[in-house]
Amino acid sequence: MNVKGTRDFLPEEMILRQQALEKIKNVFEIFGFQPLETSALETWEVLSKKGAGGDEILSETYSFKDKGERMIGLRYDLTVPLARVISDNPNLPLPFKRYQIGNVWRYGDVAKARFREFLQADVDIVGSESLLADAEVIACAIECFNALGIKEFYVRLNNRKILNEILRLSKISENKFTDILRSIDKLDKISTDDVIKEIENKGISKDSIKKLLSYTKIKGEPEKVFKEIEELEGLNELKEIISYLKSMKLNSKVKIDLSLARGLDYYTGPIFEVFAEQGIGSVAAGGRYDKMIGLFLGRDIPATGISLGIERIMEVIKERKIIEMTKSKTKVFVIAVNDRLRNKILEIVQMLREKSIKVDYDLRSRTLSKQLEYASSLGIPFAVIVGERELKEKSVKIRNMKTGKEEIVSINQLAKKF
Amino acid sequence: MNVKGTRDFLPEEMILRQQALEKIKNVFEIFGFQPLETSALETWEVLSKKGAGGDEILSETYSFKDKGERMIGLRYDLTVPLARVISDNPNLPLPFKRYQIGNVWRYGDVAKARFREFLQADVDIVGSESLLADAEVIACAIECFNALGIKEFYVRLNNRKILNEILRLSKISENKFTDILRSIDKLDKISTDDVIKEIENKGISKDSIKKLLSYTKIKGEPEKVFKEIEELEGLNELKEIISYLKSMKLNSKVKIDLSLARGLDYYTGPIFEVFAEQGIGSVAAGGRYDKMIGLFLGRDIPATGISLGIERIMEVIKERKIIEMTKSKTKVFVIAVNDRLRNKILEIVQMLREKSIKVDYDLRSRTLSKQLEYASSLGIPFAVIVGERELKEKSVKIRNMKTGKEEIVSINQLAKKF
Repeated sequence: MNVKGTRDFLPEEMILRQQALEKIKNVFEIFGFQPLETSALETWEVLSKKGAGGDEILSETYSFKDKGERMIGLRYDLTVPLARVISDNPNLPLPFKRYQIGNVWRYGDVAKARFREFLQADVDIVGSESLLADAEVIACAIECFNALGIKEFYVRLNNRKILNEILRLSKISENKFTDILRSIDKLDKISTDDVIKEIENKGISKDSIKKLLSYTKIKGEPEKVFKEIEELEGLNELKEIISYLKSMKLNSKVKIDLSLARGLDYYTGPIFEVFAEQGIGSVAAGGRYDKMIGLFLGRDIPATGISLGIERIMEVIKERKIIEMTKSKTKVFVIAVNDRLRNKILEIVQMLREKSIKVDYDLRSRTLSKQLEYASSLGIPFAVIVGERELKEKSVKIRNMKTGKEEIVSINQLAKKF
Repeated sequence: MNVKGTRDFLPEEMILRQQALEKIKNVFEIFGFQPLETSALETWEVLSKKGAGGDEILSETYSFKDKGERMIGLRYDLTVPLARVISDNPNLPLPFKRYQIGNVWRYGDVAKARFREFLQADVDIVGSESLLADAEVIACAIECFNALGIKEFYVRLNNRKILNEILRLSKISENKFTDILRSIDKLDKISTDDVIKEIENKGISKDSIKKLLSYTKIKGEPEKVFKEIEELEGLNELKEIISYLKSMKLNSKVKIDLSLARGLDYYTGPIFEVFAEQGIGSVAAGGRYDKMIGLFLGRDIPATGISLGIERIMEVIKERKIIEMTKSKTKVFVIAVNDRLRNKILEIVQMLREKSIKVDYDLRSRTLSKQLEYASSLGIPFAVIVGERELKEKSVKIRNMKTGKEEIVSINQLAKKF
């Protein structure tokens, strides 16, 4: 039995995941991101750095003492390890554009599609304060979803500076900002009335809440929103990002949404979320965090990035049947009509494999029909049947497993058929 | 700082690892193995199953209580999780040929090239008692090393049945077999005299040891060894495996070695090890384990497999400079001669990226020469320089970063150049 909240990926699922991840990795590299890998284990000192993950995540972190009595834990995201890597390698050429695809662990509620071990795929740009960098990670995320063939999605874009400004304009005191942002973040998850109640319980006046909600309901096409609101600190940054995305012809995928808050404390500027329609919700999220690396390095380095939630993305791909599922990548199953031909078929198998063709054969001395059944159950598209009679003429039979069509082919010509 | 015994892989190292793993994965699939992934976490019940990992490994396992007070741990290999998967999925079509590439964790001595988090790449065949299956995993391993370009290696082949037979012939009592095998396993690591002392200390007579060592020194080309010794239980199995490898034209890479014992208790038949020459040692090892899955499932299913030690393999690749190292996979760095062209170059960048070309550009408003320096420091092969004058004629300049050669190219023709 698996540890609760963790899973195995059998070949059928795994082949699908590999295909999706291959597409994502390819887009990451097209956008100039380079691969990084960090350890699953981090010291507790790193994981618990104030201003990094936050208390809520820490309470969900798998932690334990190693045999040297040092507290260590399993990483809960890929951003904190990145900040540590930057601090451990101060001479990396900047900007450092890296991607990392890896598991993270959180000991949370095991609800539908919430796992305790799950895969994230992150791109981050460290060392650029330019909003080009934010546009770059947003564009990269958009192109990932395009490459995956997930059509019904859009990017929600906001700015922590705007949120701070509207909190100030709503006369909410600064020490409550983080707490109130966490309530605002729930606007697309629970009812507005429930959010109002929650904010009231945090000691905010009805007038303040009214003012606040008059801002957070502002959302829509950038051009429309930009006309609607004239002046707000941080709005210019969004305009600049949109202008870059326009040059990349990707602006049509973006909506401004002043209700987007994102839970994490460390964001300092633009924040964004990829939202899949038809009831899926957030499938990627990120933002600018110019102060977080400083916690590790001792001096600030600006950074921005986005994290793709692979488990949700895989759900979308499976539900919408975007990629066809298959149980095997094998192309050809070679069958001997009797056991005497065992060594002979090994020669044929090896000849095909040397041409990089994915080939398998029977390892259980089964009958011809059982072997065909097995190949068929795995969805292998071709069988090569080796019989005494054909062999005498240096030929074999190819059977198309889908159509049942068969043809005799000379062994010399066999590899060319696949 | 990293947790002791764990590492980060910066892009230069990571690109190399990706290239090597891609080759290995490709050979695995050519041999008909399908991908499987299991969780890093396993229950303590699974990890500590008697006859699976063994006490020595268990003492090196990262284990801890989860918040529900259940003992869990990080997997120490990929074989025990496979046995659990087979037991959890009793209806998988057999034989089940799977590969898994993943990290394992062991809290051991941090000596040279021994890490506490390290990558293994395993192929196993579950559900075939045929020696074809053993030949298949050995052949697959040989072809992996061929594909990696690692030339100086050979496979050491032995059989637990032979070892048991020679222990019996040496009049060693059965309850000491496992313990003595562990000493024999050291014959290629410490001096023969030290091994003799160790076995003596285990209460074995000088005569027995002499007899035993007269067998364990038998090694060499299969044909030669087969002539040398006439009758030993399990020898026929090796002859059969060699005959299959001969049909695959891979027998020249295999040597019989009666001193090969392999530490793990669970092997029941042929055992094998890929040995890299020039002081590297074991880079892959495996064998047949027909009784292990039964510990989990309750009924025996025969199995055989091999595990490639990726960390050692990477050392060989780096030391022998088999794959060229590079800091970036980016092919083109697009440069604007001034900041006014910023949005313009985004159009060009996006145009190239849409053709799947790996493209990057400046995110720090640096001068032309600083940008060229950055691209050069990452080993990016081409720069595209966008200037006002060329733009008027819908052209840009391509610079070969290695030769310094430049040419003017129309923007329409640009993508075709890469």
